[in-house]
Formats: sequence, structure tokens, C-alpha cells
Amino acid sequence: MKKVIFLGVLFLLFSFRSIDSGKNITVSNQQELNAAIKEASAGDQIIMANGIWKDIQIKFTGKGTQAAPIVLKAETPGKVFIEGVSDLKIGGTYLEVSGLFFRNGYTPSSTVIDFHIDKKSIANHCKVTQCVIEDFTQLNRVHDDHWIEFWGRYNELDHNYITGKSNQGPTIMVVLKGNEHINNHHKITNNHFGPRPRKGGPHGETIQIGDSGTSMSPSYTLVAHNLFERCDGEVEIISNKSNNNEYRNNIFYKSEGSLVLRHGNYCTIDGNIFIGDENSDFMGGVRVVNTGHWITNNYFYKIKGAEFRSALAVMNGVPKAPQNRYNQVTDVVIAYNSFVDCITPWQFSVGANMDKSDVLPATEIRSARPDRTIVANNSIYNQVPNDFPVKAYDKVDGVLFKNNILNSPNNSDVKDNGIQTAAFGVNKVSDWLYVPTENKTDVYQGFDFETISTDLFGSDRTATNAVGAMVLPVDKNKGTIITKDYGTNWFATDKKMTAPKTVKVSTAQELIAAIDKVEAGSIIELKKGVYNLTESLVINKAITIKGKNKNSKATLVYTGAAKSPAFLMEPKGNLAVENLILKGSKEQYAFATLEKNMKSAYNLKMNTIEVSDFETILNAYKDAFADTIAIDNSVFKNCNRGIRLADENEDLGEYNAEFVYIKNSKFDAIQSSVLDYYRGGYDESTIGGNLVFQNNTVTNSGKQEASGILVKTRGIVNVVFANNTFTNNPIAAIAVLWGEKGQAPKDNMIKNSGEIKIEQNLKQKMMY
Amino acid sequence: MKKVIFLGVLFLLFSFRSIDSGKNITVSNQQELNAAIKEASAGDQIIMANGIWKDIQIKFTGKGTQAAPIVLKAETPGKVFIEGVSDLKIGGTYLEVSGLFFRNGYTPSSTVIDFHIDKKSIANHCKVTQCVIEDFTQLNRVHDDHWIEFWGRYNELDHNYITGKSNQGPTIMVVLKGNEHINNHHKITNNHFGPRPRKGGPHGETIQIGDSGTSMSPSYTLVAHNLFERCDGEVEIISNKSNNNEYRNNIFYKSEGSLVLRHGNYCTIDGNIFIGDENSDFMGGVRVVNTGHWITNNYFYKIKGAEFRSALAVMNGVPKAPQNRYNQVTDVVIAYNSFVDCITPWQFSVGANMDKSDVLPATEIRSARPDRTIVANNSIYNQVPNDFPVKAYDKVDGVLFKNNILNSPNNSDVKDNGIQTAAFGVNKVSDWLYVPTENKTDVYQGFDFETISTDLFGSDRTATNAVGAMVLPVDKNKGTIITKDYGTNWFATDKKMTAPKTVKVSTAQELIAAIDKVEAGSIIELKKGVYNLTESLVINKAITIKGKNKNSKATLVYTGAAKSPAFLMEPKGNLAVENLILKGSKEQYAFATLEKNMKSAYNLKMNTIEVSDFETILNAYKDAFADTIAIDNSVFKNCNRGIRLADENEDLGEYNAEFVYIKNSKFDAIQSSVLDYYRGGYDESTIGGNLVFQNNTVTNSGKQEASGILVKTRGIVNVVFANNTFTNNPIAAIAVLWGEKGQAPKDNMIKNSGEIKIEQNLKQKMMY
Repeated sequence: MKKVIFLGVLFLLFSFRSIDSGKNITVSNQQELNAAIKEASAGDQIIMANGIWKDIQIKFTGKGTQAAPIVLKAETPGKVFIEGVSDLKIGGTYLEVSGLFFRNGYTPSSTVIDFHIDKKSIANHCKVTQCVIEDFTQLNRVHDDHWIEFWGRYNELDHNYITGKSNQGPTIMVVLKGNEHINNHHKITNNHFGPRPRKGGPHGETIQIGDSGTSMSPSYTLVAHNLFERCDGEVEIISNKSNNNEYRNNIFYKSEGSLVLRHGNYCTIDGNIFIGDENSDFMGGVRVVNTGHWITNNYFYKIKGAEFRSALAVMNGVPKAPQNRYNQVTDVVIAYNSFVDCITPWQFSVGANMDKSDVLPATEIRSARPDRTIVANNSIYNQVPNDFPVKAYDKVDGVLFKNNILNSPNNSDVKDNGIQTAAFGVNKVSDWLYVPTENKTDVYQGFDFETISTDLFGSDRTATNAVGAMVLPVDKNKGTIITKDYGTNWFATDKKMTAPKTVKVSTAQELIAAIDKVEAGSIIELKKGVYNLTESLVINKAITIKGKNKNSKATLVYTGAAKSPAFLMEPKGNLAVENLILKGSKEQYAFATLEKNMKSAYNLKMNTIEVSDFETILNAYKDAFADTIAIDNSVFKNCNRGIRLADENEDLGEYNAEFVYIKNSKFDAIQSSVLDYYRGGYDESTIGGNLVFQNNTVTNSGKQEASGILVKTRGIVNVVFANNTFTNNPIAAIAVLWGEKGQAPKDNMIKNSGEIKIEQNLKQKMMY
Repeated sequence: MKKVIFLGVLFLLFSFRSIDSGKNITVSNQQELNAAIKEASAGDQIIMANGIWKDIQIKFTGKGTQAAPIVLKAETPGKVFIEGVSDLKIGGTYLEVSGLFFRNGYTPSSTVIDFHIDKKSIANHCKVTQCVIEDFTQLNRVHDDHWIEFWGRYNELDHNYITGKSNQGPTIMVVLKGNEHINNHHKITNNHFGPRPRKGGPHGETIQIGDSGTSMSPSYTLVAHNLFERCDGEVEIISNKSNNNEYRNNIFYKSEGSLVLRHGNYCTIDGNIFIGDENSDFMGGVRVVNTGHWITNNYFYKIKGAEFRSALAVMNGVPKAPQNRYNQVTDVVIAYNSFVDCITPWQFSVGANMDKSDVLPATEIRSARPDRTIVANNSIYNQVPNDFPVKAYDKVDGVLFKNNILNSPNNSDVKDNGIQTAAFGVNKVSDWLYVPTENKTDVYQGFDFETISTDLFGSDRTATNAVGAMVLPVDKNKGTIITKDYGTNWFATDKKMTAPKTVKVSTAQELIAAIDKVEAGSIIELKKGVYNLTESLVINKAITIKGKNKNSKATLVYTGAAKSPAFLMEPKGNLAVENLILKGSKEQYAFATLEKNMKSAYNLKMNTIEVSDFETILNAYKDAFADTIAIDNSVFKNCNRGIRLADENEDLGEYNAEFVYIKNSKFDAIQSSVLDYYRGGYDESTIGGNLVFQNNTVTNSGKQEASGILVKTRGIVNVVFANNTFTNNPIAAIAVLWGEKGQAPKDNMIKNSGEIKIEQNLKQKMMY
């Protein structure tokens, strides 16, 4: 007996020693780092000295143990900057990376942080924590990469802040190609995913797990307790493409997309919070495809989107679908969710397109309705009555509704005893959290429902149970997003807003100097007068350039080289021009993007400006992407070409601008089309661009437009075309709208111009 | 403390009492049985009285417990006969059925034994044991049913004997439609699956688990320690169509088919024995489709088939395959298997058909090669050298070969350092078991290979390891199939062969009487002379009808009704005719099947007979199926139609005969085709029929054949067409052979007749 105890003590001592005896090795350059990695053994800590590490490619290998990992860490968290052309690859066991800050650069490989080095060197039980990746994006936004790739098994991404990926490719990709990578049990936890700007087109996911080719594999990846803040990259914030993944207790805060079960089966979506926006129809909830998912205890607030972007979108599948298309929804359980102030939150048979069989191949026709699916114990509450809780794009004959309640009348086509209007109230806990005033305890006990034993906030459901995501009582603190629970403990994500500064200028030189020097967000006010410019004004930050007021406009006369722009929009350029008169000498562009390396989106607003005598009003080059172009109260005349957003012509679903608003403006004597806004390639899984063309007057334009169309919008999904006046335009068609997308002209006045046509179904190039 | 013990004792007493107190209720008819079932509680035994229970539909419901199931059992195992139009459905918990004998009947529903009654009454933890189902087959073989359907979870089929299903539909079907039925952990163990006759066409599996529509669901069904004896139903003995199933330690004894991973992923095939036959190319091994399977420790003996029927067939998939077609093989591990005396046991990219893209849609073109697949530590041994161990129908660039050995030179196209010729010997343990003379211990350690910790017979691999399925020493008893380990403890599966009895007859009356009375297997010998018959001779058992010898033939003159046959083949009719002259009066059929209810196959052999003046030589009606039609040394003349096996014209892959041998015979003055043997419908997953047409002479025939083809074989997969003589046949084509299937005429003499054509790729009607 004594002997055993003695050995036990020895073992304890040994264990402790093994941790304690780890060396601390501080390194200051790549050579020292490489040497340290080569020498490191379990328990060692390699400490990267504070400072900027530029153009560094780290291969972190080694064999740590659970008790004694090998750690690669910043001397001070956040003070080790990885910049330039740099990346980090991890291959080994129990390796941990901590405190690095990736910024001012991009990866030379296909990943910023990679949980494998090559086929033979794969990470297992490795962890990246307390790191930041900020704007570490490729120079060209169509250059594809992933910021973090998971390979191997049991790897973790925990407490990191990741933001600003604007190039093509999911931010995080979990790879399942090979038995070494399945059943991986990776954990993506407590991270803060900061804003990811709208990418335009596909491949802008924040997380993708697997792909269609490995979608039959079990992944068992856990995505839990993360904050997704304004992750607007594309219609899928998370794209699930493998089996057995769990999405638990994440907050999706004002993010324009959904958690999409695109491929793969038997996933769990439990206890997540989806917070939408008063004004946005783009923030979605959960979109369901495939088999066997359980969607429980989720809370949806102010999700106002429809179809793909609805709070709960249950899709139609393609019968016997090809591996990369849409499988039928079967054996899905949707229970104990709450929907508050959502517009028509339940949408079934989303994607049904049987009417398109003449323009699409059979493998694209989604006619297989959800089957063997249970929707039970959910609650729908609306402060302003919402009589249409359910929308169905096909028959709803394979869904069993049980014990769902709503507080409005149900005037939907889908009526069912399992969806009952009931009087119930809510109490406001915070801006977005409303809890019921009482537990509605009459719940349906479906097969295996006893496994739903807790609620959204972890409260027990076995003693008292209730319809909806919450069982009372609810702790009032649950209504607050505690940002320190997410991301790092050192990076400040709450940037302070300072009041914009105004700089007044009265000469061209002053203007040029001011643009270069002012802080982002500043206003440059031009004294009335003429500013002669021979070089482009370079815009790479947020800036407003304005005349004093509409009665006191400044005049910019640009006489630079042919095809050079008066305003050159660079990445992150965010320009507002107001109260200006802008004149060219027929050869220049008024506005244009860089021809190359438009790594991030730009924004352009024009209000009360007059543009004349340019070759082109706006020229967006291929790969350039505008988040928003907004034109109001302006006049454009005597230009050869209008607003050109049509260089994304590879027909891969890409397009040059997400939102284009043209309102209350006049176009006169534009020789070709006044607008050319194009999206090519059949990609119904992402949704854009968006055009509002309203209250404008177009005269004497289109004379030389080869296509015969004055306002070109081919392939753009959302178009409002209303209240415009077209007079004396010598052209065949004013516009050709896309009928299937609900586009229809409204209240336009047409005189001596072409007609507005509608093409019901567009024939598009298949991308797959 | 005392109190706790006291309660414990009470609990124990209570538990014991609950078992002991179970009632034994003996029942003698359906009413009593129903009442007993209604009243039964945990621990009760309902005893069905010995005798024949006819036309009974049993619904066995109740709630037993693990410790105290409710048992429904035969008074004496095997003495309770379920006959007529009967079935058994089970719905409840811990119900057990034992000792019943299903025979002389068929089910009125879609199942004989069903682990569910309806949507609400599903079996869980139920068991069927010590039962026999013998020939309980539908009257019409295309009438679909399953003998045993699994629903629910944790059900068992253990120690049963099941044989003789000749109608359409898998013998056992595991259903996964709904969450109640997934993750089912059913066990199919220690059963003896006796002969299942060749069905002809698809839907003749012995076990099918899931279907393409539920193939993404986890099943976790265990199929272990079963004996499959001559399960010849179709090309798939077991059709795996779901995930995570395990096939362990089964013996496939001379069964014409394979264990096929048709749909579904991540299955285990471990420790199985596949025993082929000296003469058969139809007995297969394992056919692999999809992702993540582990095929380990299996032993293949004398598997001689090719392509779909090879010992190890690894298929090409369809890129992005539709759910019901062929997915690419990826992440598959094939390790530690032994192949003894197999012909070209490894076949890769089976099913590659890129050359057929002009006749098949893209969704049928299997061009996706196996990828990320490991073939390691396998051994191939051939007593007679076999230089072509590997056949590949496409490039083999996604397979990693490691430490595989063979004892012959490798003259295959596929050469690899991972396939090495090595000198090693084997010792014969039994007819089919050969064990290596020494452990070849140089094994490859692949990812997760340490989980392969035992060998074919359960011996440890962690101390000593070896290439191949076995680690020495091997217990010599392992070479014997101990039949008592399989099936029931009461049913004798070894039928004694008695020497055939011969009955001599000399009049038609005696002949008719003898056919009716003799035992199956008897010989009726006809004295030379003329036998005038006006009614059909009905053949429903094995019988030989012969003249004494070829020089002393008896003559049967049949003058029955028009279109009635001289010999009427009924189900299980197995007729051999020898040394006979058979004459009609131009209106009758010489041979024909029943028009309806041909529930089982028939066999027909003709040797040294002369047939003349019939309307048709043989007329097989729709739904009739001959296993073998063998004609030798015979003469057919002056008939309107020849041998007609072409009524299966629904183009669903069905056909009228599996094997047709026509040799050394003469056809003269047959007005239409001499043979019409047809299979329609594109069904490349099953393989048949089979024709040998050799050494025949055909003259003056085909005059009135509308198709212009003398020997019609459209859709028949295997055709030998050699050494025939065709003279003076006024017809366009003698035959149209199917080039893609390797059909080519050989050494035929043609004079003043049509030509023999070859059509490379057949355009066929898609079945899916």
C-alpha cells in the first residue's frame, strides 16, 4: 500500500516537473524562431519578441502533450505584429499559438493560419487562441484564400478576433478530405467574428465545414459561443457541408446572411440568437436542406427577410439530387424556437422552381418537398400584428405541426391545428430580448424530444417545460451581449466614433493636400470657384468632398489624361461628393476604380452634383466591387458612357456592386447606356445585386448603344424601376427586367423612347 | 444503512417475482391468441399450440422489459406451422417470437414478419429467434414483398433459417425512413440464409439496409456470424444503402453475388469468408462504392468472377452523382485481407464507362476514379500461378498500395512497389481454408490501423502482426463450417439425397398417372411406342421422362387444344426429357409455362429429342422464370415459332431465363425466330441472362420473322455464339450481338443466310 502511494507521489512530482521544466525561449527573427521550433519539446514556450515580423512564414511543428503543450506566443499579446507576405502553418500534436496580430498584409499561400503543413504533417490537438486577424486580405479580391484552414482532428480556434476579409473564399474552412480529418471534433469557440464586408457573389462565407464532395463524411465540429457581428460576406454566414456538426449558443448580430445547412446531415442548431435590423431584409436565420437536423431553442429577433433569407427557410430539394445540389429535407426537427417581431418567419419549400423547367436542367428543379419533418413547440410573437406567419412555395404535406403558438391571427395559406393563435404577452428585457410573460406548458412530446432537456439559456426543461426557446424565469442579464466573452482579452473592437472634422479649401493644391492628409471620416469643404485638376484625386479612405451648399457649388475642371478619372477610387475608398460641378474634356472618366488590386470594396455617394463632358461617368474595372453607389439629386450630361458596372463578365456569379441607388437625377445626352449593371452565371444560392432606379429623367440618350438597351440590368436580382421619365431617347428598349424575380416597372412616363420589356426566365450559363 | 439494504432486498425480490410471475398462456386459435396478446404483460409467455395455423395475421403488441420480455412461442419449436395467407407484425417493446415455422403460404401484406404494425406501433428491443421461413413466396414472382422488415431500433433476428424466396424484393429490408428508425443498432446474427434461387433481374437481395433515399442516414445495423448458403437471388447478396453498418464474421458459401456497398458510407466489412466454386464465375466478394469504408481481415477463396463479381471490386463513380447513382470511392481502407486461388481478385474502376457517353446521360457516366484509398497488408496466393492479380478499367492514381504480397509474378498493367511478389507458402486446413506457413510481419502502419487489433479469427494483432487475414497460429477447427452455429436448433437443413427411382410405363394412362404419383427426382421410362395425349402433362417437381435410349425413342403425339402445351411447366417443375419424339398438329405448344402464378423458377432439359409440328417449341409467359433451359443433341422442325423467352417486355431489367444452353441441335423450317430471348431496361447493376448457342445447324428458318433476326438476344448480357451452321435462311440478320459486353461470333458457317451483326452500345430505356 505504501509503495503504491509512493509511486503515486513520484508520478505527481514527475508530472509537475515536466510542466515546470519547459524552457522559455525568446526569439527575435525567423532564424531564431525556426531553431527554437526545431529544438522545442513538450512544455516549452517559444516567445516571439514584440515588434513587427514582416514577410515571415512560420512552420510550427512539434510534439507536445496534453499536460505539456508546446506554446508559441507573443511576448505581449497583441504586440507581435505579423505583417507583409506572411503565414503560419501548424503540424504536430498539442501545439498552441497565442497572442499574434496579423495585419497589414496577406498570405503568400492559400491560408493565413493552417492546421496542416502538408500531407504528412497535420495538426492534432492544436490550438490558436488570443490572436487577431484584421484585414489580412489579398490585394485582388477574386484571389482565393482561406484565413484559417482546419485539418486533422481535435484542433481549436478559441477567443480570437477575426475581421475584414474582403477577398474570395470562406474565412474559415474545415477540410475533410481523408480519414485523418473526419470525426475531427474541432472546436471553434468564443471567437468574435467582426465585420466581413459584402463580397458580391459567392464564396464569402465566414465558416464553411466540408464541401459537397466530402459532405457524406462525419465532421463533429463544434461552433459554439461565438459572436458573429455584421458578417455580411454573402448569403451564407456559415455553410454547413458535412455531417454531425453542432452550432450552439452563437450570436448572429446584424449579419446579412444565414446559418445554412447546405450539405451534410444530422446537425444540431441549438440555442443560437439571431438579431436582425429594423431596416434590413438581408439578415437571415437558419436555412435547412438535407436530412436529420435538429433545430432547437433558437431565438430570432427582427429577421425580416424572405425566401433564402427568412428566419426559418426550409427548402425544396431536387429529387435524387446530385451531390452538389439540393437534397430533399427529411427527418428534420424544428422545436422550441422563438420568433419575435420577424416578418413571415417560416418559409417552406423555399427554392421551389418547378415553373422553370424550360430554362433549367432537371437537376436544378427543386420539386421534392420537405418530408417527415416536425415543427413543434415554437412560438411566434409580433408586437405589431403579423397575420402571415407562414409562407409556402409548394404544398406543405410532409410537415407535422404540433403545439406551435402565435399571438397574431394566421391568415397564411398554411393553416393547421398545430399552429394556434393564442393570447400571450412578452416582457422586454433588452433591445432585442423579449421573454414571454408566462410558461405555455402544453408541449408536444415528439420522438426523442426528451433529449431537448434545456432551453436557450441552459435552464432545465424536465421539471417545467414551455413552448418557445425559453423557460421562465429568465435571468435579465441574458439580454446583454457581453463582448468580453468573445474574441481576445487585448484587442479593442469598439472603435470610438469621433465627430467628423471639416477642412476648408479654396485652391486645387489645398484640395489635393487635404485629401492626402485628413483623417478618415473628414469633410473637405470647397469654397465656391473653379478648381483645375490635371491629376486624379486618389480616394482610399472615408471622405466627404463638398461645396458649401447647393446654391454655392464649387466647380472641378479635370483635364487629366484620356481614360484617367477625376476621382480614383482605391480599396476602402468611401467618397461622398456634394454640391459640386464636375467637368471633363470628353476623354476622361469622372470616377473610376483601380484597374488592379481592388482588394476591398469602395463606396461612392453623389448628392447634388453636376457631371458633364466626360467619356464615362463611372468606370468600375473587373474585380472592383462597390458596396454602395448612391446617386441623388444630380445631373449627368454630354458623356459618351454612363455608369459602367459590367466588367465582371466571366459569368461566375460575380458582379461589380452590391447596392446601386440612382434617384431624382437627370441624364441628358449620354451616348450609350446610362447604366450598365451586370451579373452573369447561374448562381441562385447567392442573391444580388440591388438596384433602385427611381424618379429620374433621361433624355436624348442611348444613340450609340449597341445593345439597344438604355438601362442595362441583366442578371441583377433585385430591381426597383419606378417613377422615371424617358423622353426622346432613340433606342429600342429602355430596360429588360427579369420577371421571375418579381421585377416590374411602375409608373414610368415614356415619350418617344423605347419600351420597358420583361423577360420572365433568364437563360443563364450554368456555373457547376 | 439498514433501511437501504432492506429496500435493496425488496427491490431484488420484486424483480425476481416479476419474472417468475409471468403467466404461461397456451392458445389454440386466433381469437385466443389475440386475447392473450391483449392481456399479456411483462414476463408472460404466450404459447401457440402445436399444429397448423392457417390464414392467420398476428399482431404482437405489448410492453415487455429487458429483464422480462413478453414471449410468443411455439409449444414445440418447429411444430407450429404458419401456413396459407399469413403474416406476423410486431409493435412494442421487448417482445420475443420463437420457434415458428412459416411454410406453404405467403403474406397477404408486404411482409411476412414486420418489426412494426403502423406508424404509431413500432418494435423496439424486439427479437425473432429459432424461426424458419421456407418457400413462403408469393404466387407471382413479380409480386413484391419483403419477408422481414426492420423498423424501430434495437431489434434482433437471431438463429433463424430462411430460404426459398423466389419473388421480387429483398428477403430482409431494414427501413430508415424517420428518426425512429435511424441509429437502430439492429442485430442480424447467427442466421442461416439457405438457398435463394436466381431471380433474374434486380430486387433479389438477401439483405438490404436502407435505400438510396435514406442512404445519408446512420443505421448502425450489425450483420454478424451468419451463413449465406447459395444465396443466388441477384448480383447483390447484401445491398448496403446506409451508413455505419457492420458486416462481421459472416460466411458467404457458394453464393452467386457480392456484399455490395451500394450506397451509404463508413461501413465495416471485417472477418468475413467468401467461398467460391471451381466452376462458377458468378460468386463474388466485396463491391465498393462511396466513402470511408474499412474492409479488413476478410478471406476470399476461389472467387473467380470479373468486374461486378470480382473478389474485390472497387468502382468508378459518377462525378457529383445523383443520390441513386454511384458516388466516387474515397477514403476507403482495404487492409489485411487474404485472397486464395482467386482469378484477378482486385479490380479497380469497375464500371468505368466513359466510352458510352453517346448512349447514356451524363449522370450514368462513371468517370470518377477511386481516391484517397489505401490497399495495404493484403496477400494474394494462388496454387496455380496467376500473373494478373490486378485489373484496372481506368487509371489507378488515387490508390495507395502498401506492403501487399503475392506469390505469383505481377504482369498486370498495375504495377506498384506496394504490390510485391514474394515467396511464401500455405498449408491446407480444409477444402477452402489455406493458412500461410509463416507470419509475414512487415506490415504498413496506416492512419488508425492500430484499430485493426485482431485478425479474421479474433487472434490478437498487437503482439505479432502479419500481412493477410490471419496471424499464425490458426486453430485447425476454423476450416470447418459448423452448421449448428447458424439457424435454428430444430430444423434440418441437410436434406438427404435418395437414389432416384425409375418407373416404367407403356401407355399414355400409365404415363399420366406416374407423373402425378412419383416422388420428386424420379425417372419415368417409356417403352418404345406411340403415346397419344390430349391433355397437357403437368410438371411441378423434378422428373425425368425418357425413352429407353436414343435408338429406342418413344413417340408422344399431342393433340390437345390450340395453344395448350404438351408439357406444362409449373413452379418448381424441373423436367428432363430424353430420347423422345414429340409431335403436335401445328396448333399446340410443345412446352409452356403457366400463364399466371409462376411463383418459383422452373428448369427444362432436353436431350436427344425430336420436336415437330408445333405452333411453338417453348412458350414462357410473362413473370415465368427458368433458371436453366438446356437443349442438347435435339432436332426441331416444322414449327411456327421457336423458343420464346421474350414476354418480360416492361423493360424493368427482368427476363425470362437465367441460363439458356442450346447445343448440338438442329432447327429446320421454323417460320419465325428460332430463339427470342429478351431483356429490356437499362440495369447495369444486375447481370444476366446467359446464352450459349453452339454447334447448332439452322436451315430454312425465319421466313416470317417480322424483326428480320433469326436468333434474337437483345439485352442479354452474356452470349456465346459459336460453331453454328446457318444454311438457306431467308432473313436479314442471323443475330445482333452486343459489342460492349464482349459478344462476338466465332467460327460460324453461313450460307445463303443473313449476317451476324454487332451493335457496340445498346440504346436502352432508363429505369430510374
